[in-house]
Amino acid sequence: MRLPETTTLTLSQQQGVLHIVLDRPQARNAMSLEMVEELMTVFDLVESEAGIRALVLRGGGGHFCAGGDIKDMAGARQKAAEGDPEAFFRLNRRFGEMITRANRLPAVLITVLEGAVMGGGFGLACVSDVALAAGDARFALPETGLGVIPAQIAPFVVRRVGLTQARRLALTGARFDGHRALNLGVVHEVADSAEELDKKLAELLGQVRRCAPGANRATKALVLDVDQVPMEQLLDRAAREFADAVNGDEGQEGTLAFVRKRAPSWAGDRD
Amino acid sequence: MRLPETTTLTLSQQQGVLHIVLDRPQARNAMSLEMVEELMTVFDLVESEAGIRALVLRGGGGHFCAGGDIKDMAGARQKAAEGDPEAFFRLNRRFGEMITRANRLPAVLITVLEGAVMGGGFGLACVSDVALAAGDARFALPETGLGVIPAQIAPFVVRRVGLTQARRLALTGARFDGHRALNLGVVHEVADSAEELDKKLAELLGQVRRCAPGANRATKALVLDVDQVPMEQLLDRAAREFADAVNGDEGQEGTLAFVRKRAPSWAGDRD
Amino acid sequence: MRLPETTTLTLSQQQGVLHIVLDRPQARNAMSLEMVEELMTVFDLVESEAGIRALVLRGGGGHFCAGGDIKDMAGARQKAAEGDPEAFFRLNRRFGEMITRANRLPAVLITVLEGAVMGGGFGLACVSDVALAAGDARFALPETGLGVIPAQIAPFVVRRVGLTQARRLALTGARFDGHRALNLGVVHEVADSAEELDKKLAELLGQVRRCAPGANRATKALVLDVDQVPMEQLLDRAAREFADAVNGDEGQEGTLAFVRKRAPSWAGDRD
Repeated sequence: MRLPETTTLTLSQQQGVLHIVLDRPQARNAMSLEMVEELMTVFDLVESEAGIRALVLRGGGGHFCAGGDIKDMAGARQKAAEGDPEAFFRLNRRFGEMITRANRLPAVLITVLEGAVMGGGFGLACVSDVALAAGDARFALPETGLGVIPAQIAPFVVRRVGLTQARRLALTGARFDGHRALNLGVVHEVADSAEELDKKLAELLGQVRRCAPGANRATKALVLDVDQVPMEQLLDRAAREFADAVNGDEGQEGTLAFVRKRAPSWAGDRD
Repeated sequence: MRLPETTTLTLSQQQGVLHIVLDRPQARNAMSLEMVEELMTVFDLVESEAGIRALVLRGGGGHFCAGGDIKDMAGARQKAAEGDPEAFFRLNRRFGEMITRANRLPAVLITVLEGAVMGGGFGLACVSDVALAAGDARFALPETGLGVIPAQIAPFVVRRVGLTQARRLALTGARFDGHRALNLGVVHEVADSAEELDKKLAELLGQVRRCAPGANRATKALVLDVDQVPMEQLLDRAAREFADAVNGDEGQEGTLAFVRKRAPSWAGDRD
Repeated sequence: MRLPETTTLTLSQQQGVLHIVLDRPQARNAMSLEMVEELMTVFDLVESEAGIRALVLRGGGGHFCAGGDIKDMAGARQKAAEGDPEAFFRLNRRFGEMITRANRLPAVLITVLEGAVMGGGFGLACVSDVALAAGDARFALPETGLGVIPAQIAPFVVRRVGLTQARRLALTGARFDGHRALNLGVVHEVADSAEELDKKLAELLGQVRRCAPGANRATKALVLDVDQVPMEQLLDRAAREFADAVNGDEGQEGTLAFVRKRAPSWAGDRD
C-alpha cells in the first residue's frame, strides 16, 4: 500500500494500523485547510484499503490540535473583502465535512490526546472510537469567548457527551484536563505519563487486533446508525449482516478457532 | 394466576413480583431459541396480568447469561447447508424480537447480574429498568472477536450507555466488571457480596411497591417514547394521561393517603 | 429595562444577569399556576432584551421547588366536578409549556438547587444550561408514589440524564442528594456550604461574561437542535452563522482583543 504525500501530516503504517501525526508543531497543530484536505486524502485510502484496520491519530510536539488556523482565517477575511462572501462559510463547512467523514471511517479511529485539545481538535477527539488522554491535556471550546461559534464542532460534542454537558461546555468556554475529560465521557482512558499512555495504546491495539476486521466494520456502521435509522429496520438489516458474517470467511475461521482454542488468523495480522 | 410450564426457566411469584431464573447452568444459561420462546410466553402473561408489577430476572448457578447457544448455531448451520438460507437470520432476529419486547414490558424489569453477562446476556441487561450487578460479574461484547457481529445487541447497548461508550465496547471486545459497569452506566447498583446484593434487591422491590402500578405503567411507556414521538405530541398525550390518573382510582387513593399521612393501598400489596 | 411586577417571584438585575427567586417559602416554592404565568412573563422580557445574558434561578427560604401546588390541584378538581373535564389537562400542560420554553431561552439559564428539588422543581433543574447543587439538596420524582405520573417532567429528565437513569428514577421514586445528582448528570457542580455555592456561582458568572452574548445565543440554539434537525442541514446552517459571527461586531472585537491580548468589550459588561 502506498501512502499519500503530505506536508502537514506524517504517516506510517505498521501491522494493519495507520499512524497519522498532525505535524505543524510550530502552530500547535492548528487545523489548516491544507491539513483538512490532506486528512481527506488519507480517508480516501482508508475507505478503499480494507487492510487498514485501525488509525492512530495524534499530534506532534506535545499538542494534539489547538483549533482553527489563524492564517486561513486571515485569508478568508481577505477573500471576503475582495467580494467573495462565501469564503468563511466554505472554510468552516469543509472542516465539518472532514469531521463527519472521520466519524464514519470503516477502520477503528483512535485519538491520543496531549497538550491542547481545543476547538476543532476537541471536535476531532469527539468522533474517535477510542480516545486516550494525557492527564494534563487541556480541553475547551473557546469559540464564544472569541466572538464566534463552535459551528461544526458543538454538534459532535453533543453526540459525544450528551446535551447536558455540551451546553455547559459550549456556553462557558470552561477548560478542563484529561481526568475531567474521562469523567465527562469525552475520552475512554487517561494516563499520567508518556509511558503509561504508550502502554495503554499498545494494549488497545492488541484488543482491536483480536477483533475480526470485517465484523468490526459492519458493527461500527451499525452502532452509528442507531437513532438515525428506524430501530426495526436496523435490526432486520443487522440480522442479515449477522447471517452473512457467520457464513463468511471470518465467521468460519472464528468458529474453528474457538472450537480449537487457538487465536483466529486475524489476531496475528502482520504487514 | 397460573404460571406457564417451562423447561429453561424456573418461575415463581410473590407479592406481585414474578421471579424468573434462567436455568441452564450447565451452559452458563446460554440463550437458546427455546429459552427465547419461553421468555416470550412469560411476556404474554406479564402483558395480560396487571397484577404483575415487577419482574426479577437472574441466572441460576452463578452466571446471568453467557451469550448465544452453540447447539442452536450448529442447528442453523445444518439447516443452511440443507438449503434453508434464512436459518441464521431467523435465529438472530428472534432474539432481537424478544429483547425489543422485554424493553417495553408494562411491569418494572429488574436484572440481577452475576458471573458471565456476555453477548445476548449483556443485551438483556441493557433493557432492564433497574440493573443490580455483583462486583465481580464479567461483562463483554465478544462477537467481533469470534468473527460475527452483535447484531441484535449493539443497538440496545447504544441506547443504554450512549454512542461514545458503545462504540468502544463493540469494537474492542473489552471485558469489564460490575464496578466498571456501574461507572459506564450499564447498571444502577453494584454489590460486593451475595448478602449485599439480596439486600439491595429487597430495598429496590420495596421502592417499586410504593409506586402505583398503573402510574408506573404509563410512566414507563412515556419515558420510552421520548425521542421516538415528537416532543409536543408526547407532552400533550402525557397531560391527558395525567388527568386520567388524577381522576382514576390510584390518583384518588394517592391523594387521600397523602392527606391522611398513611401508606397508599398498593404499597402493602400482597398475593 | 423595567422588570415586571410579580408576587410569586422576586426579581433583580445586575451586570446583564437577571436573578429570579421563587418566593413562596411557606409552600417550599411549590410551582403554582400563578408562578408559571409569572415565569412566562419574565421569559417574554428575556426573549426581547438581548442585554440579559444570563438568568440565575433559585428558591427563597432554603428550598428550590417542592413540586406542584396542592391548592391548584384542589381548584382543578373542583372545576372538573363542575363539568370542566379539561381542568387537569390544562393545569398540567401549562407547566410543560413553561418548561419547554425555559429550555430554549436565549440567555444562559443557571439553576441553584438547595433543599427540595422535587417533581416540577426537578424538571426545571433539568432544562438549565448549568446547574449548581448544594450537597444536601434532595431530589426525587415522587409522582407515581402519589398515584399520578411525572407527565411534563419525565421527558425532560430523559433528555437530561438519558433513558437508563431516567427509567430507574421515574419507576422507583428514588430520593438522592446533590452529590449523587452530580454523579447522575443532573447537575454540573456541587457545593457543601453556602459560601462554596456562592463562590461557584460567581466563578460561573465570570465565565459566562467572558463569552460573547450573541455567539452564546446562536450556540445554544445550535446544541439544542442536534437530533431535532438533520445533521447535514444543521451543519450548513451553523457554517452560515459562523460566517455571520466572524463578520459581525462580536467576531471583529473578539479577533482584535485576541491579537492585542486584551479582554473583549463584553467581558467587562456593566449595567
